[in-house]
This record gives sequence, C-alpha cells and structure tokens, in this order.
Amino acid sequence: MRKFDSCPLAVIGTVAIDEVETPFGKRERAFGGSASYFSYAASFFTPVGVVAIVGEDFPPEFQKILEQRPIDLSHLERSQGKTFFWRGRYRYDMNTAETLETHLNVLVDFNPQLHFPSHPEFLFLANIDSLLQERVLEQAGKPRARFVACDTMNFWIEKKKPQLLQVLARVDGVVINENEARQLTEEASLILAAQKIHSWGPAKVIIKKGEHGVLVFDEGHFFALPGYPLETVFDPTGAGDSFAGAMMGFLAKTQDVSFENLKKAVALGAVVASFTVEAFSLDRLRRLDLHQIEERLEIFRKICSF
Amino acid sequence: MRKFDSCPLAVIGTVAIDEVETPFGKRERAFGGSASYFSYAASFFTPVGVVAIVGEDFPPEFQKILEQRPIDLSHLERSQGKTFFWRGRYRYDMNTAETLETHLNVLVDFNPQLHFPSHPEFLFLANIDSLLQERVLEQAGKPRARFVACDTMNFWIEKKKPQLLQVLARVDGVVINENEARQLTEEASLILAAQKIHSWGPAKVIIKKGEHGVLVFDEGHFFALPGYPLETVFDPTGAGDSFAGAMMGFLAKTQDVSFENLKKAVALGAVVASFTVEAFSLDRLRRLDLHQIEERLEIFRKICSF
Repeated sequence: MRKFDSCPLAVIGTVAIDEVETPFGKRERAFGGSASYFSYAASFFTPVGVVAIVGEDFPPEFQKILEQRPIDLSHLERSQGKTFFWRGRYRYDMNTAETLETHLNVLVDFNPQLHFPSHPEFLFLANIDSLLQERVLEQAGKPRARFVACDTMNFWIEKKKPQLLQVLARVDGVVINENEARQLTEEASLILAAQKIHSWGPAKVIIKKGEHGVLVFDEGHFFALPGYPLETVFDPTGAGDSFAGAMMGFLAKTQDVSFENLKKAVALGAVVASFTVEAFSLDRLRRLDLHQIEERLEIFRKICSF
Repeated sequence: MRKFDSCPLAVIGTVAIDEVETPFGKRERAFGGSASYFSYAASFFTPVGVVAIVGEDFPPEFQKILEQRPIDLSHLERSQGKTFFWRGRYRYDMNTAETLETHLNVLVDFNPQLHFPSHPEFLFLANIDSLLQERVLEQAGKPRARFVACDTMNFWIEKKKPQLLQVLARVDGVVINENEARQLTEEASLILAAQKIHSWGPAKVIIKKGEHGVLVFDEGHFFALPGYPLETVFDPTGAGDSFAGAMMGFLAKTQDVSFENLKKAVALGAVVASFTVEAFSLDRLRRLDLHQIEERLEIFRKICSF
C-alpha cells in the first residue's frame, strides 16, 4: 500500500465493483465507487488519501489503477466478505441512473480508524452511509480539517436523514445533484433548496445538474455554469464523484477556498467529469493528463463568455 | 392602427387569448400569443411590425398594450369569428406546458398579405402553422429580408412536418426548445440534433432549455448559457417568444448577425425571458425598461464568468 508523509486531502467513500449498462453497451465487472472516482480525479492536482473498505474478491488490477497515481491507500482496508457492489442502468435519459441492485457487503461492518501522520486539511465525505461520514467527521472533521465537504444520494436521504442532517451541520460545503437537493429540502426551486441547505450548516452549496451544468451558492455569491457540451455521453457513472474530486483537489492544491477560486475549481470539476463520461469506468481518466484538462478548460471558458 | 414608415423587423405569429394555470394561480383571459410576446420584447430594441389576425372578441385593452410601444399594427387583421385561444397548465415541472385546449378559430382562414412601405430586413416566423410561415416567406423572405429565423412547436412538428422542413430550408436561423429539437430530429443528443437541423438549412440553431439555459450553434461556433437564476417562476408562458423577440430585436437594432453579436443577443433574450416569467401574461414586461434589462444583463455576465 502506498503511503505519504502528508496528504492535504482525504476522502471517505466506496471502492466498488459495478455492473453498468448504457445505451452504448454493458460492462459486467467495472471498477467503480465514489472514493475511486473522487481520488483519481483529485490526483491530477494533489496527493489524496482514500478511506475505504474492499472485500476478498477485490481485483488486484483495480487496486493497481489507484497505486499508479499519488493516492495514499494506507486506509484502504481489506476485509473478509465481498466488495460493495452496484448494478445500474441508464436508458434514454443519461441524467438519471436506475439502480437495479446495491449490495453493501463489507460496508456493513466498516469502522474506519484514521491514522494519518498529519491530519488532512481538506476532507471529503463522498457518497456513503451517513453514519460512516459521521464517524470520519469525529476523527478528522473540523477543527482538525480546515475545509470539509460532503456528498450524498437518494438512498441515504430516505434511510438516514437525521444522521445526514447532523453531518450537514458540521461541514463547510455540500456537493449534491439537483434531484437530491429537491428531495432533501422538499423545495422545487433550486435556489430555495440551496438556501434551505445553507441554513442547515454548509456555507457553500454546489448543485450538479448533469448535462445542464452546475449552480454554486456561496453565502450570497452565485455562479452558474452550463454543462460542457458532449456529442455523446457513453457512461455517466462517476461523473459527480470525479467532479467533486477535481474540485476538492484543486482547492487543496491552491489552499484557497475563496468564491473566486471555487469558481475555477468547479469549472475544473465539470471538465474532468466531462472526460469521465466519455468511456466506461475510469477508462478515460486513465488516459487523461493535466494538459488535456487545461486545454478543455480554456475551450469551456470561451464557450461560456459573452 | 399604428403605422411606421419602416420597420427593420417584422414577425408573423399568433395574437391570442390564453387561459393559464400555474401552481401560483390562474388567469382566465390572459393576453397571449407568440407575436404578442415577441413584438413586446423586441420593442425594447427596435420598431417591429406584427403580422397576425384576431377575432371580433379581441379586447381593445389588449390591443392598447401593444399600441403603447413602437409596434406597427398595420398588419393586425381583425376578422369575423373568435380570436385564437390556448388553454394550458403548468404543474410541478415549470419547464413543460400541458396544453388542455387549442382553438385555432380565425387562424384557420388567415391569409396574410404584406404591404410594408419597405421590406423589413429582419423577419421572424414565430410559432404558428408552417403553411402561414411559408406564405409570409414567399412575400417577405430572402432575398428581400437579410436575416430570417423561425420557431415552431410539437403541434406543427406532428401535423405539418413536410411544410416545416420546407420552411427550415429557407431560413438563416431557428429558435427551438430542447424537446422540440429532439422530436424534430429524432436525436437524443442536442449537439447531434443541432447538426441535423443545420444540415436542413439554417446556419444558426438556437436551442432553448428553459431554466437550464440556451445552446447556440453557428456554423462551427458554439455558445452555452446557463439559465438566469430565478427563485420562483410564476408563469412560463411566453418565455420562448419573448426570448426570440429580444434576440431578434437586438440583431435588427445592431444590424449585425456575427457570432459575437449573436451571443449578446441571446443573453439579452434570456434576460428578457427571465422577466416575462415573473408574472402572468405581459404584466412584467409592461413594467420593464431598458435600464432594468441592462442591469440584469450585467448581473448575468458576472454570474457566468470564471
């Protein structure tokens, strides 16, 4: 396992085996999970530590994919049992995943114990059980970390809303998609939804709208980004996680959480996500480099300016 | 009827009586119609001529609303019978109107005869029967007009697709919403849809996405604009028509159809549409002035830049 003296950024989330079907094809054993996509995307900007668990069936070749990057795997636990498994399908509307199966497997008994040599200044609680997010918050949240943000999904909003609200009360930022924001707040308007979430704690509320872009609310400041235009979206899995990874990676690298810098971080997040969806799993990210990211960012800037 | 020596811009479309229900209320006799919204929005930028027909029941107070603006009504025909009537409802999803009734009424026998003192250089074929769009094209289309654009809707795509394709072959631009673009082209991707429409004729393809903004395709150039953020959309009726009106009005005023100028025109269209939806019918536009439009445009520019 790769270890680093210090990681400015850490993420807790899932490292998973996915089965994904899109209008363009199907992959039966795809490397997936919120922490996998997040850390790979963040690693273009900064070293990043992964707090996660896998089972005995976790393929060594998946682990190697992360090991080739500046990703600290000293908190990637291997346990008896099976790796977290997600089976999903996208049909005509590539903005919405249809979950066919979720097997929590080893995640059920996961009890992360953090032992980073020095506390990461930036912490991301990716999409995972809100209870686990809370446990990590207790060990590595504020004031130890300087900036903490989280994601979630419909599953946890339904099953663990009280815990989720406790997490929200203790983070600086939330990255959430538009349907989840509406479901969580019971507000149709995304502006009202963001205001409600903000009133529960987070200063920064970032709402992802898939192909329609991103809205950013930051204590009275507002930023709207259209989606990066793609002819075809091959597989949307991991778009949101790699968005958050690139965003947090850039914030951690620059050590700057001002609104101005957040706008660039969000644009970089959208760019990296636009690469993610061009192929199954982490395939496109594995062929990506910082130069390509910066090139697409410049195209994006041009496309949006008037 | 007000007459102008010359109008740089003319529109054919409907002047209608609407009945509209939104989650915020209901109005039984609302002034509506594609040409009404279009011309009112365009009139902030340029004099504009309206080619349309109304029935005996058309309220004089509706006509006065247009007469107070630089709108040429010398082609507003009054005929025996009833005015075009549309009844629609918006529920939770304010992006999609549910049409409950459409009575074409006097529109059925409309046979527009154009007699402008000099031919308008800019012509817009607003949402109306494709056959009527064609008749106006024959009298005032290219090469008499310098720049011609059109809109349409699902009703005409279903009923009059061959005529619509003939219209598309003879215009420079099309302004269409995302669902209509997908329906017309049978393409899920809006980029592929725009390419297909472009291959049928129009150099400029402008796809409206409601609260999610606008995409602009202009012979290899591309521009994406997020939606202007609004806390509440009170009544979306006329948003698309007033978008097109402000856009065409600005193009006609500046006499410049370059891609750079089109971007500003589209942003102005989005701004004027964002006012339209703040109240029923033309209510908000009637309290609007150019200063407010420019102010919101500057806010919009700030919101989108990174």
